[in-house]
Amino acid sequence: MTTRLNVSLEGRGYQILVGSGLLHGIGRFVRSVTNAPKIAVVTNPVVEKLFAKIVSASLKNSGFNAIPVRVPDGERHKSLRTMEKIYAGLLKGGFERSDAVLALGGGVVGDMAGFAAATFMRGIDFVQVPTTLLAQVDSSVGGKTGVDFLGGKNMVGAFYQPKLVVCDLDAIKTLPKREYLCGLAEVVKYGAIKDAEFFEWLENFRKDILKGDVAALERMVKISCATKARVVENDEREAGERALLNFGHTFAHGIETALNFKKLKHGEAVAIGMVVAGRLSARLGLLDKKSAERLEKLIASFGLPTALPRGLTPAKVWAGMAHDKKFLSGKTRFVVIDRIGRAFVLEGITKQDVLSACG
Amino acid sequence: MTTRLNVSLEGRGYQILVGSGLLHGIGRFVRSVTNAPKIAVVTNPVVEKLFAKIVSASLKNSGFNAIPVRVPDGERHKSLRTMEKIYAGLLKGGFERSDAVLALGGGVVGDMAGFAAATFMRGIDFVQVPTTLLAQVDSSVGGKTGVDFLGGKNMVGAFYQPKLVVCDLDAIKTLPKREYLCGLAEVVKYGAIKDAEFFEWLENFRKDILKGDVAALERMVKISCATKARVVENDEREAGERALLNFGHTFAHGIETALNFKKLKHGEAVAIGMVVAGRLSARLGLLDKKSAERLEKLIASFGLPTALPRGLTPAKVWAGMAHDKKFLSGKTRFVVIDRIGRAFVLEGITKQDVLSACG
Repeated sequence: MTTRLNVSLEGRGYQILVGSGLLHGIGRFVRSVTNAPKIAVVTNPVVEKLFAKIVSASLKNSGFNAIPVRVPDGERHKSLRTMEKIYAGLLKGGFERSDAVLALGGGVVGDMAGFAAATFMRGIDFVQVPTTLLAQVDSSVGGKTGVDFLGGKNMVGAFYQPKLVVCDLDAIKTLPKREYLCGLAEVVKYGAIKDAEFFEWLENFRKDILKGDVAALERMVKISCATKARVVENDEREAGERALLNFGHTFAHGIETALNFKKLKHGEAVAIGMVVAGRLSARLGLLDKKSAERLEKLIASFGLPTALPRGLTPAKVWAGMAHDKKFLSGKTRFVVIDRIGRAFVLEGITKQDVLSACG
Repeated sequence: MTTRLNVSLEGRGYQILVGSGLLHGIGRFVRSVTNAPKIAVVTNPVVEKLFAKIVSASLKNSGFNAIPVRVPDGERHKSLRTMEKIYAGLLKGGFERSDAVLALGGGVVGDMAGFAAATFMRGIDFVQVPTTLLAQVDSSVGGKTGVDFLGGKNMVGAFYQPKLVVCDLDAIKTLPKREYLCGLAEVVKYGAIKDAEFFEWLENFRKDILKGDVAALERMVKISCATKARVVENDEREAGERALLNFGHTFAHGIETALNFKKLKHGEAVAIGMVVAGRLSARLGLLDKKSAERLEKLIASFGLPTALPRGLTPAKVWAGMAHDKKFLSGKTRFVVIDRIGRAFVLEGITKQDVLSACG
């Protein structure tokens, strides 16, 4: 069964498809949103080996001239240099404004393919086919695209909405466990900031989720995507509500910066960041201790880290955060929760409170 | 006297100010559209010498922390390399999402500063301060930004609307004559494709225009900007009517490509391209011969070229055009006129007709 979720954005609305086996019929789905004669399948060697064949075959069946554009695997290649390779691939393939780009892979592939689609000839059609849990529930929905620059994450990019997002649950089953758990961190976030009922469901079904039970997966991806879609609809360009999606992320970026983006994966840093954000919320008297503990317990039950790695001091995390663009105009700015399922942005929290919450 | 023209785009409308001496009060105008603490003044060494001082002083007076970001002069520097320099300048200056970019210069500066604003942290406020006639009447209005890539003009870019466009007529007076005439080519275009009355006015006042009479300048810039604004309002992303602005430009790009972007300036190539487009329109029986001659005569009376330079054959121009992205999906596609003041797009014109019109 395929679920269709609508993202309503004036003149640029699109659907998110969630289901099993969708990659086999991808051509038909993509054809329903674009008349492009050519489509670039942007992917990395790891994903290519797994899915490129079935995706290309299906695209060809639907009349697309599907042209592979390979990018190297890994966040360190999310750069303007790699963008130039994508642009060169499109030019070499004779791409025109009426052609399209399809991202087949995780967040890095999606961010770069999306930025290429946003900027090649000032914008061509774009389809997201996220193959990791993290990309399905987070980066593929909402139109954020871009690359890192001079050590700054996503310093150069664009808001550019896809014409379609296709989440094939079968792809998730091919993920290494650690990658899967990283996606779960973002899933927990949606419960924590927006949906207490979903949070409770995650607590109750955590065994099914860890086993990768298809029904559980489907519900989890569906609700996560729907939640993100609602937030993006209300605030496409991150002027307000969308900032709530940064719950745990300001700390996470501080942790990642302090570690020079080594040791921990993004989802792991987010897991720790959410525990810290929950503790900060409790420390400020906004959240009862029991709820903060529930959050920590759920994260731990998924096998995700909940404390700073050895040797990383709160002071180092603070220094890392000070480089973050979310430290708007020098003011500290954190997303906190006052109960499971409700978040808001708080400004001007003291360094002392932040350090204590980290510790 | 300052004229204010409105560009109405849903949620992203802005004003174009046209008048004399506006640079002296630029800070106040810019402050009325952005709360940015910092503003990057992107400019090249030539323009910097002329206007940077008064612009910076006025920006500071209005509370901006104005930071200069220099780019080298000339179209050959309209590249991703130069974009990296701009991004680095913004990062070094500690720019945040709430800061802004101001383009002070001609089309190259405006295109790159605009693309930087469109993509730095996924988009920050942007103000256009065009200092050439060409930029005032053409590139600064409409939100086209970008750079050249691997020999392709504007291959990488974005549609990104400014918050404000400020056209100071005094700046035009500092232009070398050749640059000024290049701007006139685009002015003639608006008359030819959209406004027979304006075309006639250009014929009647060509002496005042060539002398740089302020009243004539003001009327000319105002009507040109207003015409472009109307077209952009109807078709922001070039799906239809906006293509009419390519009158003469398909030929011009063919000429420029054949000449490897040497010898002729863009406006000069456009001048020749319009004569050819007029001749093509007549050849196809759409336009009476007299009107085609009027077009050629007006262009010649401005001292602009009307014929291919020596050694450039129609066949070479054809080959140059075949690389153009406007040759949509391999089909020839030209803007023609069926009278002075009315244009449309025609597809499938034969190579023979095109070659004859060039000759």
